[in-house]
Amino acid sequence: MSGTTDVSRADATRARLLEAATGAFAEKGFHGTTTRDIATLAGMSPAALYVHHKSKEELLYLISRTGHERTLALVEAAAASSEDPVEALRRLVHDFAADHAVTHTGARIVNYELAALSPEHFAEIRAIRQRIDRALGDVVERGLATGAFDTPDPRMAGVALLSLGIDIARWYRDDGSWSPQDIGARYAEMALRIVGAG
Amino acid sequence: MSGTTDVSRADATRARLLEAATGAFAEKGFHGTTTRDIATLAGMSPAALYVHHKSKEELLYLISRTGHERTLALVEAAAASSEDPVEALRRLVHDFAADHAVTHTGARIVNYELAALSPEHFAEIRAIRQRIDRALGDVVERGLATGAFDTPDPRMAGVALLSLGIDIARWYRDDGSWSPQDIGARYAEMALRIVGAG
Repeated sequence: MSGTTDVSRADATRARLLEAATGAFAEKGFHGTTTRDIATLAGMSPAALYVHHKSKEELLYLISRTGHERTLALVEAAAASSEDPVEALRRLVHDFAADHAVTHTGARIVNYELAALSPEHFAEIRAIRQRIDRALGDVVERGLATGAFDTPDPRMAGVALLSLGIDIARWYRDDGSWSPQDIGARYAEMALRIVGAG
Repeated sequence: MSGTTDVSRADATRARLLEAATGAFAEKGFHGTTTRDIATLAGMSPAALYVHHKSKEELLYLISRTGHERTLALVEAAAASSEDPVEALRRLVHDFAADHAVTHTGARIVNYELAALSPEHFAEIRAIRQRIDRALGDVVERGLATGAFDTPDPRMAGVALLSLGIDIARWYRDDGSWSPQDIGARYAEMALRIVGAG
């Protein structure tokens, strides 16, 4: 067996464990999930789990980091997508909202289990969240500077725009009548109203 | 000892248990909390807990019912507070948002642990949630009927207005710089923008 195959097999096992951990945390919460639950869902023994991941908290951290990095990338790409703050905010809120619908199971864990991270991991995740906040805040500031937006409290408007997207992870159901794209488009229009565009 | 004293002592014990359960569920989630945790926090034995409450799920149900009934009462009072849909919506969103800030610990449990309720209890809580949705939806419909509001998708606007309030329970901190009243006032103005008032 080649070394490359060993590596890809280990990667596949780690991916299976992350998927199992996501399902278990979503159903029973981080504190209600045991490493045995996760190992069983992934079809392996608890001892085999520890070969790949040091702890349950490390699995939560990896899920959280992956989710936050994906969100940061889409928010920064949207912010840079247009010189026009109206177009940039429309795309940012569309993509943020649609992504929270598509990834709702993971997004719930990412947003509701922050307190279960170790202090070091929490600090790292908080830094990513601050970059997300800043990317959004910069677009709002650009719109205020050009006169495209008008809001009495840009910081609170920013919190509200993030809330709209994050809370989608709580209520969205795959069998509901709205697609992630429908939600993204409507939420983008509501966001522009909140910041007083047009 | 009189019967009345017995009753009030039992009531005080039940209230202490509900408070302990709220704290424990908020910290470790419903599934991560044991009845022993709750009993210890309330300063009693697990056996003594069962004298007052049949199960951990019953404590969650009582917390959930109390929270939902309080929310329903304030939403219905706000909806009936003015003939003018602008004033009614302003008060509704103000009170809903401020209440989620003040009661953020309980509000998190009420909104994030619905899946842990028994089917019968979930059906009862869902019926209260539907009445809350309807009271808000009626105010939005009144505004559309009079021409005071203008929104392409009233149902999605209603979901967004509730999301804004509910998500406050996730991010609000007692030592933050915004008071519940500040948040209520700003969120009411953002809500009026979302529905296209003025």
